[in-house]
Amino acid sequence: MKKVESSLEYLRKLFIMPDSPDKFMEFGHAVLEMIHEFFQEKKGLHKKITLPELAQIFDQTSTPEDPHLIRDVLQEIKDKVTVHSVKVGSPHYIGHMTSAVPYFMIFLEIIIAALNQNQVKIETAKASSFVERELIAWMHRIIFNRDEKFYRKNIQNPRIALGNVTSGGTISNLTALMVARERAFPADRNFPGIRKAGVEGALNYYGYSRMVILVSRRGHYSIRKSANLLGLGEKNVINIPADIYNRINIKALRRNIHSIKRSDLERGKKTKIMSIIGVAGTTETGNIDNLMELGDIAREEGAYFHVDAAWGGSALIVNEYRSLFRGIEKADSVSVDAHKLLYCPMAMGIIIFRNEKDLDHLKTISQYVNRPDSVDTGRFTIEGSRPFACLKPWASLKIIGRDGYRLLFGQAREATFTFKRILEESGNFEILNYPELFILNYRLVPQHIMEKLNEWVERKKTLSNRDDIRDLTKKIRKINSVLNNLNVLLQKSIRQDDTTFVSRTTLESTKYRPQRIVVLRAVLINPLINKDILKKIVSTQNNIALKLMDQFEPILKEAIT
Amino acid sequence: MKKVESSLEYLRKLFIMPDSPDKFMEFGHAVLEMIHEFFQEKKGLHKKITLPELAQIFDQTSTPEDPHLIRDVLQEIKDKVTVHSVKVGSPHYIGHMTSAVPYFMIFLEIIIAALNQNQVKIETAKASSFVERELIAWMHRIIFNRDEKFYRKNIQNPRIALGNVTSGGTISNLTALMVARERAFPADRNFPGIRKAGVEGALNYYGYSRMVILVSRRGHYSIRKSANLLGLGEKNVINIPADIYNRINIKALRRNIHSIKRSDLERGKKTKIMSIIGVAGTTETGNIDNLMELGDIAREEGAYFHVDAAWGGSALIVNEYRSLFRGIEKADSVSVDAHKLLYCPMAMGIIIFRNEKDLDHLKTISQYVNRPDSVDTGRFTIEGSRPFACLKPWASLKIIGRDGYRLLFGQAREATFTFKRILEESGNFEILNYPELFILNYRLVPQHIMEKLNEWVERKKTLSNRDDIRDLTKKIRKINSVLNNLNVLLQKSIRQDDTTFVSRTTLESTKYRPQRIVVLRAVLINPLINKDILKKIVSTQNNIALKLMDQFEPILKEAIT
Repeated sequence: MKKVESSLEYLRKLFIMPDSPDKFMEFGHAVLEMIHEFFQEKKGLHKKITLPELAQIFDQTSTPEDPHLIRDVLQEIKDKVTVHSVKVGSPHYIGHMTSAVPYFMIFLEIIIAALNQNQVKIETAKASSFVERELIAWMHRIIFNRDEKFYRKNIQNPRIALGNVTSGGTISNLTALMVARERAFPADRNFPGIRKAGVEGALNYYGYSRMVILVSRRGHYSIRKSANLLGLGEKNVINIPADIYNRINIKALRRNIHSIKRSDLERGKKTKIMSIIGVAGTTETGNIDNLMELGDIAREEGAYFHVDAAWGGSALIVNEYRSLFRGIEKADSVSVDAHKLLYCPMAMGIIIFRNEKDLDHLKTISQYVNRPDSVDTGRFTIEGSRPFACLKPWASLKIIGRDGYRLLFGQAREATFTFKRILEESGNFEILNYPELFILNYRLVPQHIMEKLNEWVERKKTLSNRDDIRDLTKKIRKINSVLNNLNVLLQKSIRQDDTTFVSRTTLESTKYRPQRIVVLRAVLINPLINKDILKKIVSTQNNIALKLMDQFEPILKEAIT
Repeated sequence: MKKVESSLEYLRKLFIMPDSPDKFMEFGHAVLEMIHEFFQEKKGLHKKITLPELAQIFDQTSTPEDPHLIRDVLQEIKDKVTVHSVKVGSPHYIGHMTSAVPYFMIFLEIIIAALNQNQVKIETAKASSFVERELIAWMHRIIFNRDEKFYRKNIQNPRIALGNVTSGGTISNLTALMVARERAFPADRNFPGIRKAGVEGALNYYGYSRMVILVSRRGHYSIRKSANLLGLGEKNVINIPADIYNRINIKALRRNIHSIKRSDLERGKKTKIMSIIGVAGTTETGNIDNLMELGDIAREEGAYFHVDAAWGGSALIVNEYRSLFRGIEKADSVSVDAHKLLYCPMAMGIIIFRNEKDLDHLKTISQYVNRPDSVDTGRFTIEGSRPFACLKPWASLKIIGRDGYRLLFGQAREATFTFKRILEESGNFEILNYPELFILNYRLVPQHIMEKLNEWVERKKTLSNRDDIRDLTKKIRKINSVLNNLNVLLQKSIRQDDTTFVSRTTLESTKYRPQRIVVLRAVLINPLINKDILKKIVSTQNNIALKLMDQFEPILKEAIT
């Protein structure tokens, strides 16, 4: 790479938009052609390169001394970075929630970078503060549907915040649980609030021995992280079993609350149920908890009710999905990710509070920003400096519209059920969830094994002798254990093959419960997916499966005899 | 705006890069011209529009139903958003740390959005994971300067993390203090660690009544936020006075530690000093604590030593600034913001840990990402999904190079001292800090008042009679109090005038200590600043000042008699 003779004159020119857009466009063209080439290359989802090989490419241990030409660095990015990126936008890549984004997002990113507003403060973010509040009001209405008067009053009211734009779901959930903690241990005449006094002081003052969060086993790991961060301790996240539909088991929840109380009585201690969390679109299976019941229980128990709708929340903008979320309006707060079902680029979260005064609990002030009399957005956020990211969902909701999102989600639902049907028809795959929001869990079970397995499962139901049941259960466990290994290998081989991609996880909530079952996981939201592609994905995975089945034949045979 | 008849076919096309870059470029041109127009408009830093007027523009309380043309929405952004944005890139805007960014950042944003990698997981971020680790290694070396062998071994070692890329300084500081908390209350045979047990359990197990953080009064408000978040309670952030150079007063720190211990003895309780924090570039004044001494004290006390170098840290890439940071290599962790002195767009933080095993304390796993055997970056971060933001500083360090940053910081230093000189020459302004990293604090003090004030301050030194001292102190306080009001008004009027911009804060650490003095705050890092611009800024502010001085004449007169 050519070294550049650096001078202040040269550097200054980098900071000025070139006089004519044409000059700027030269680079723009080069960048876009780079992107084009990357997307049009047909050779699989990754370049064939191993991680150790990549490690050798990025092994410069010191910061570069000399300046280099923009052209040369862009070329380096093309040669080293772009080609070795993951084609998450490909319709053959259906493994994660990261999907294709509309190309207009690129224009929005250009605007965001060029304006470089900092949302923390009105002095660094004028119109963009208003855009953010408008977007937050839209999302509030979509979720809580308060009356027009409420929104008229609050949409641009700088004294309150209906929610925050965050860097993603984790910070959204953290924000919600921080408010929950404040509300659980509020200030009064003799106590400055948990915020000032800390966890120890709050528990002591209110006479509690601990505070807990209740959430289904399908809850996102950011809940555990938040409990760690907030000083509750991970052990105080109580994971409630999920039912076969991957929804929180309401009876188990009630039993759990009951047993907490009984144990409190016995030990002469008190437990504060800080929050009950509903999941609206579990990360692994896409299913939605019974929010109605959760809301009622939270109210009964005086617990803060948060709904983690990072995945599914955006579906609420389309009326036909509302029934899935019945009860969400009882939530104290709801998190929704823009980089998921709103099809925005990485990464942006939204956290919405039903009560317009709840974010007051987090209000921070300082001398140089967010002064007491200020109207700065930064008073209400965990993060400080924040980009003008909200422009993306704001503009996208205009360009695509609720109507467009209806079509996109319709297509995703269609794709999910088409994929399910094709898998079922292939004979070698077993479906293991009841898809609600575009996620399908399945696994490879060779046809003859499936027949045996089904037979055993059916026979088990008819048995009454304990020993017989135990023996058969053991056999089922054994075959599932072999299948688990087989499916781990299958997913790795699919990754190796590289023409299609699905992810994998382990569920304890399938019909084989409580045994933990390895499942493949497909997320079917890319609008470029069509039936032919899905057929190709299944036939590719089936072909890989056939080879593995040969390999596993002896072990499988042993397991079913 | 024209409504669009939506169809899946139309929507799908939005998700595909247009066949020819030319088509894509049509919009690209329009967007860039919009940006151009915005920057070239000479009419001040904002459009003349009040906040209530803006509130009326962004007052749509419901999400748009129908799709709209990209063209129309871009036009809407131009008419409503861009024109009402703050020109933070203007060299006349020297009020905040948000400055101009080089135009190549826009190309990098295009690449980042188009690739849409998610750094949480190697399956969604291949080369980009390696870019991130390479950047982290560079920054680690710049700060800690371990030997080549250390970096060879760790630069691409997926089992450890030398640091994280975060959404900004707040999350960086939070990450550091979370590690500090873990290290203060580690797991042992009988205790699962504070992470699992929570704050209450940890304090009990280790026999402490509280844990505290010690930081100078100039510490960023994110420290207080972190103490709140982490369950310590804000009251357990102990703010140590700053000296007249805005550095932590080391004697006061030692006194404070001593008095904590004495009080612990008296009350039969124990305080854990969880962390001592050094500030390397205070947000308000740009000064750097004595890190050498802080490091020694932290070691003596067994406290975790974190350095918040969000502002100043990047100056370490230029050798001539290293001496300002002497002792930083003793830190356990250092935070640095890319959107500050690395001139990247909003927002990206970096947190670096000296010990390559420290981030193990945060390690999280789950079934579908970050499995125990995984090599995913997401195991070590507070945040979950994260964008490929690290491409920006990585490429910028190549394009600008250490050599280029040397020139940029040289220019910023030059600008700071030129501005200082011009202000001093004008006669009506008093300089109130000793600038180290490109931030200047000053205030309006009309020349005749300044003479009186100086006279009083000098006379006070010669007095020995208590009553005389008290009387004179009272007079000085009175005039400063009037000047405080005058300077608040001045800053507001400058904002009103809108051709230049500086921010304002209140310092208790000036030569008038302990009185709190309102100061104007200029951040002089924009490379487009030159002497003429600075002269114009001062003359504009001086003219505004003259008008205000007339208005204040009677009050000022009364105060100095």
